[in-house]
Amino acid sequence: MLNVIKVGGAVVEEPKQLAALLDEFAKVEGPKVLVHGGGRSATKLAAQLGIESRMVGGRRITDAAMLQVVTMVYAGLVNKNIVAQLQARGINAIGLTGADLNLISAHRRPVTPEGIDFGYVGDVDFADGESLFQLISMGATPVVAPLTHDGEGQLLNTNADTMAQTIAVALSKPIADVNYSPDEVTLTFCFELPGVLRDPADPTTLIPIITEDYFQALVADGIVAGGMIPKLENAFRALHAGVASIRITNVNNLEGGTVVTLNNS
Amino acid sequence: MLNVIKVGGAVVEEPKQLAALLDEFAKVEGPKVLVHGGGRSATKLAAQLGIESRMVGGRRITDAAMLQVVTMVYAGLVNKNIVAQLQARGINAIGLTGADLNLISAHRRPVTPEGIDFGYVGDVDFADGESLFQLISMGATPVVAPLTHDGEGQLLNTNADTMAQTIAVALSKPIADVNYSPDEVTLTFCFELPGVLRDPADPTTLIPIITEDYFQALVADGIVAGGMIPKLENAFRALHAGVASIRITNVNNLEGGTVVTLNNS
Repeated sequence: MLNVIKVGGAVVEEPKQLAALLDEFAKVEGPKVLVHGGGRSATKLAAQLGIESRMVGGRRITDAAMLQVVTMVYAGLVNKNIVAQLQARGINAIGLTGADLNLISAHRRPVTPEGIDFGYVGDVDFADGESLFQLISMGATPVVAPLTHDGEGQLLNTNADTMAQTIAVALSKPIADVNYSPDEVTLTFCFELPGVLRDPADPTTLIPIITEDYFQALVADGIVAGGMIPKLENAFRALHAGVASIRITNVNNLEGGTVVTLNNS
Repeated sequence: MLNVIKVGGAVVEEPKQLAALLDEFAKVEGPKVLVHGGGRSATKLAAQLGIESRMVGGRRITDAAMLQVVTMVYAGLVNKNIVAQLQARGINAIGLTGADLNLISAHRRPVTPEGIDFGYVGDVDFADGESLFQLISMGATPVVAPLTHDGEGQLLNTNADTMAQTIAVALSKPIADVNYSPDEVTLTFCFELPGVLRDPADPTTLIPIITEDYFQALVADGIVAGGMIPKLENAFRALHAGVASIRITNVNNLEGGTVVTLNNS
């Protein structure tokens, strides 16, 4: 079992919460990859520098000045602090962006039909599972910041959920050159709630397993709605691309929460 | 031949100069490591954030706020831009600090006898040549930012010359586990002048080779003086620790300049 775990929000940016998260992450057995965000710190640094943060549909508009900010915060401040603190927990972490080892290449998002230019935002083209696997087989634990590159020298700000998913899919594929037959990959998305809840206000209404049919029923019944729909649609896409299971949980319960799976068993 | 090349100053921070440097670096044959600085950008960002830069004897006092700045600038902005731009030149760069893979561990510098507390500044204890060699044997080109860690979760600001030297020495040692017999390692320090000059104002007075005896004579004659003395003393220390040769040159001439060697031949 190989775990790709994505965390974002305050938990990676507030020292006490981060320490608790890394304690939990260190306990996860077997090979693992951590993908992190850092948006709050980026917004804070941008404000200190007099740069306005503009979001459209929850996505950050990334002009040249904002790209410098997210490069500093994601790849520098957040990433290297996580790496140093994992080293202190005996995890041989290595901090990476998609540019390092050309791990994740992307292209700049075109201006939308509505005329929105997201700026230096990357839509992922390719993740190199083989190089990631080589690092993992060295005993390293990749810690990935949400930046990619276009292969022509340009860094690009990239959605961390998408990066985690792309990495999980890439690590699920056989790698001929190194005679690597993939482990089952579990992709875990951490967020504030303990999982997918029938009643978002009541943590005891956790739905432990969601299959594809059940997902359709939950949507039809209005139990799964809003931002959770695209999240789960993406989850099923990753499952169909080879990922063994998707977990939606919070950081206190990395091995609990809601499991999204293609199997009814 | 394996080349460890250290560059600092404006050349890594001003886009046109950086592009020229990376063109030169890309041409260097064989395995190589780039170690970079970034102090000017750090000073600039600190000023924008209202953080005062304090230097003692050319070394930066690094309080908690300044450590955040150098982590963002060295490991984020400067490092990842170099990585992306090397990828565009076909070099499979990977950006690293001493915390990544526990490559370079250090301890916080004690308060000096004169009562100067440099803050979060690291004095290097150990560089892991084996892990660096594993990356290099994957075809990767390490790009190293001047940060280390103490193994207990603390990042430390560390002199880039010292890091380059430590890496060159570590890569010069045999590595039993991987049955690695080291190549000859050349350590190149890039600075503004074309090398060690008899007359700093006249580039035609370049001294092409400096042996240990000749160094003593140059010091006695007052031709080598000031900051060049500790630079060359460090160079001889690295040579005695196994590095094959040290080159002192500027970025336009990575294979020229002054060669410091133990051999008279």
